[in-house]
Amino acid sequence: MAIQMFEKPLGMRDDFPFIAKKKSALRSKGTAIMEQAGYDMLQTPTLEYYETIGKISAIPDNALFKLLDSQGETLVLRPDMTSPIARVAASKLLKEKMPVRLGYYSNVFRAQKREGGRPAEFEQMGVELIGDDSLYADAEVIILASTILKELNVESGRVVIGNTQLLHLILQDFGLDSGQIEAIREALVSKNNVGFDELADYMDMDPAKTGAFKKLMATSSLEDWRPYIDSANAQQTALYEDMLKLEQIIARNGLSEAITYDLSFISHMTYYTGLVFEFYGAGSGFPLGNGGRYDGLMQQFGMQVGATGFGLRIDRLLEAATGSAEDDRHTLILFDEQSEEQAHQEAQELRAQGARATLQYGPAVRDTKSFCALFSEVRNLGGALNG
Amino acid sequence: MAIQMFEKPLGMRDDFPFIAKKKSALRSKGTAIMEQAGYDMLQTPTLEYYETIGKISAIPDNALFKLLDSQGETLVLRPDMTSPIARVAASKLLKEKMPVRLGYYSNVFRAQKREGGRPAEFEQMGVELIGDDSLYADAEVIILASTILKELNVESGRVVIGNTQLLHLILQDFGLDSGQIEAIREALVSKNNVGFDELADYMDMDPAKTGAFKKLMATSSLEDWRPYIDSANAQQTALYEDMLKLEQIIARNGLSEAITYDLSFISHMTYYTGLVFEFYGAGSGFPLGNGGRYDGLMQQFGMQVGATGFGLRIDRLLEAATGSAEDDRHTLILFDEQSEEQAHQEAQELRAQGARATLQYGPAVRDTKSFCALFSEVRNLGGALNG
Repeated sequence: MAIQMFEKPLGMRDDFPFIAKKKSALRSKGTAIMEQAGYDMLQTPTLEYYETIGKISAIPDNALFKLLDSQGETLVLRPDMTSPIARVAASKLLKEKMPVRLGYYSNVFRAQKREGGRPAEFEQMGVELIGDDSLYADAEVIILASTILKELNVESGRVVIGNTQLLHLILQDFGLDSGQIEAIREALVSKNNVGFDELADYMDMDPAKTGAFKKLMATSSLEDWRPYIDSANAQQTALYEDMLKLEQIIARNGLSEAITYDLSFISHMTYYTGLVFEFYGAGSGFPLGNGGRYDGLMQQFGMQVGATGFGLRIDRLLEAATGSAEDDRHTLILFDEQSEEQAHQEAQELRAQGARATLQYGPAVRDTKSFCALFSEVRNLGGALNG
Repeated sequence: MAIQMFEKPLGMRDDFPFIAKKKSALRSKGTAIMEQAGYDMLQTPTLEYYETIGKISAIPDNALFKLLDSQGETLVLRPDMTSPIARVAASKLLKEKMPVRLGYYSNVFRAQKREGGRPAEFEQMGVELIGDDSLYADAEVIILASTILKELNVESGRVVIGNTQLLHLILQDFGLDSGQIEAIREALVSKNNVGFDELADYMDMDPAKTGAFKKLMATSSLEDWRPYIDSANAQQTALYEDMLKLEQIIARNGLSEAITYDLSFISHMTYYTGLVFEFYGAGSGFPLGNGGRYDGLMQQFGMQVGATGFGLRIDRLLEAATGSAEDDRHTLILFDEQSEEQAHQEAQELRAQGARATLQYGPAVRDTKSFCALFSEVRNLGGALNG
């Protein structure tokens, strides 16, 4: 295959100024909100060892971009930000200062197999709150993500909340073994209603139980969860009580209308151990982002502490966020040899006022009409452009 | 070799919050100045085809990070930003709107062979002004870079300016053949004074000429260049006249004291065809950035237009820029089950005023003393932390 000069690798894109500007606005707004809530932004390297970050990333191996370094070690392009941040949080500098609040705005990579498919590189912003096992930590990150969606003017922003641990206990109560739970898990991850129903029929449960089981995917409030909780089971009751407390905190923050409590919701990210959540907005069926509690991951870095966090996808936020009116004023100052000094002075004055001003030597412009059309005001000093 | 969980690949670094925050400030300030001067920011993908961007990048092949995609094509991690931006500028969307002003803040990659060496990933910000052959374009980008250095409070910021094309004509006048010019070029790129002198002696010039030749590396003003200009050579005189005009424009912008005109200065970047420049600051012998005119590069993308631009290295700017005093106020609000509602309200009030406020469930804090020490104010609501 001969590659043309303008071609880019599969799934790779240029962000033209129009998009780059919007992204930059999302970035400023989002990171400002995270910082105000006490999160410190950090940046980790693009390349990581496969043996460390690659293996624990929860991204399938065939979606990793791999390469060899000069020592023959396999490297990967960072597939997510949660594991690198876990590494930083467990470092000497931060581990004594738990709980640690860290935020990021970073690109991540997923190798693609087909043309016209998903992006192979995309940006995420999010936070990790590490070293706090309490449900207040989960409430904090859900409220923070919702605040960001609100401030970015995401239309019909909503959150779906599940609880991996509670779901697992309930599935065990239906008498399912670990193989069956795994099959159910897969159907739930892919939100495959039909597959889920077929599995339920096939599993040969007590018919009374099958009916209740099939309604799992239709739960949308904590009230709907109640029939599944075994009141004699202390662990289940405690987890359910926590969910009710969470609901209360979220409601007090004026977010209750935007929340769905879906008992059947679990994530494809296997490291989540408790609460899981996904964010949606108008326009697209794809989630804008997701998050949850991952108490096991920090063990990889030698720490027995809980952690929770979320990540939002910038490309999807761009589609869902209704941008605020922008200031598009931009003055073009055309000059020739004689008016060059005056042109510099006028540009400096405009810029000192915070305005945009482009200085341009008139004779260097080829297509005057389409060039001038890009500006809101054109000053033609000393007739730099004749005609 | 067994890789430890905390290890990162050769030349890869984490930016802890303290550094990430400083970088973010540099980024905001720098890109705001570029935008005010009429530049539109863009972003290109991290991965490019070796056949396109890799080959024309002017970065030695062994410093490229290479990998294979699923089609068996060789990809590279973007080694610089000039060639990807040239591609975007030559695209249908922009090519009719020349001159095009594009800016970027991006990471670039250079494979390293040794521990403790240079970074394998670093960030640059800069601009490309494409489609303007005039010396006004060169003046614009030099003034823009200098303005950025000034606004970032870079101490003793200065610019070294050379002219590749004029130097080449002058070397020919000394009777050097292309092989000798190449040897001289290498000595100049590596700023190897001793090697340069030895070459001069070896080249068997007229002794009168050798003396003048050896002084090339000591030129620091356009006055010093004058003796080398052959007044009978129209091309040389025209190029020198342009340099004088450039000096005038730069002087009018109050920058003359910070400029060195060094006739012997050339860049290791082989695509520069005319004016070249390098930026320095106090503290480090390494340049903060560099730039120049590269009229040939756009031909790769089917366009016969001139281009000029610069890139500044963020890691080096961080060392040279004296940061402004930061607002480090950050309130910690500790709460317990009872004071949780009040805590949320107090945090919201603080954040609405633009302040930073961290909410923390008191019992989740392990080492109270070192945690609280991170904040400028601590509010212990309802005795959330006893003692």
